[in-house]
Amino acid sequence: MKYGIVIFPSKQLQDLANSYRKRYDPHYALISPHITLKHVFESSNDEVKDITKKLDHIARKFKPFKLHVSKVSSFQPVNNTIYFKVETSPELEQLHRDLYSELPGGDPEYAFVPHITIGQKLSNDEHSDVYGQLRMLGIDHEEVVDRFHLLYQLDNGSWTVYETFRLGEE
Amino acid sequence: MKYGIVIFPSKQLQDLANSYRKRYDPHYALISPHITLKHVFESSNDEVKDITKKLDHIARKFKPFKLHVSKVSSFQPVNNTIYFKVETSPELEQLHRDLYSELPGGDPEYAFVPHITIGQKLSNDEHSDVYGQLRMLGIDHEEVVDRFHLLYQLDNGSWTVYETFRLGEE
Repeated sequence: MKYGIVIFPSKQLQDLANSYRKRYDPHYALISPHITLKHVFESSNDEVKDITKKLDHIARKFKPFKLHVSKVSSFQPVNNTIYFKVETSPELEQLHRDLYSELPGGDPEYAFVPHITIGQKLSNDEHSDVYGQLRMLGIDHEEVVDRFHLLYQLDNGSWTVYETFRLGEE
Repeated sequence: MKYGIVIFPSKQLQDLANSYRKRYDPHYALISPHITLKHVFESSNDEVKDITKKLDHIARKFKPFKLHVSKVSSFQPVNNTIYFKVETSPELEQLHRDLYSELPGGDPEYAFVPHITIGQKLSNDEHSDVYGQLRMLGIDHEEVVDRFHLLYQLDNGSWTVYETFRLGEE
């Protein structure tokens, strides 16, 4: 099965992200707005028990931490994804590092740029149009993260939550 | 916020349900295939901590139990919903009772008929056509349930998982 690990931000931030994703993100119906901590990786049904034990262990090392969404940004020229930029923090960096070093799935393909996608797979014209507008609107938002989620992917591409891990819990 | 409590069955069963939902269920994109344990109820952000404590407590009283999906059925003439019938069991009944007696949201509106919806809001003609076909296909499937999920609803009608509760865990 294909697994991934994400943070779902608050309902308020998800609703805001969805107001853009509805028009600009073809993955709108496949998953709620999220910050990807670990990209899709393959694992067997048998392995998942071991993975959840490791995730329990990782989650306990952390405490709830602040998340700061600071602006609208874009991955251009790499691709046409537009996103809410999440300021990196020692906790996010460490969490990302632990999820890659302690779980299957190899090394990250890219440097970690924490973000919440609000538009993707846009044409160049759409991208410059939409990005121009959204960048002007801006965003500045803080909230506390106290959990992350292990998800698996269904055959239709959508994601179901397998389990939640609360930061700092016994 | 609006909350609900569900069981997500195995990926195998979700994929099968989605193969029908894609065509026959307008809620296809809003939530993964599920068994509703407690219908939508309103609760404040402050209350949710208390609710998760109660859910932790309820989950611990149970052990993982068998789920038997026995046939394709329909709620007609009440409505045109077609579903995988889940055989009721002492554990499902008790879980349903506990979630209503110990959490906010009042009494259940209907008798508890555990099921996984595969089609809804069909016209009468569609219903008899689709139901006729699916009933013939049938289903007989067993698996083990070892967790349930507390979800909340976003403004667009879709559901995000707030937290997972593993049955029988400390």
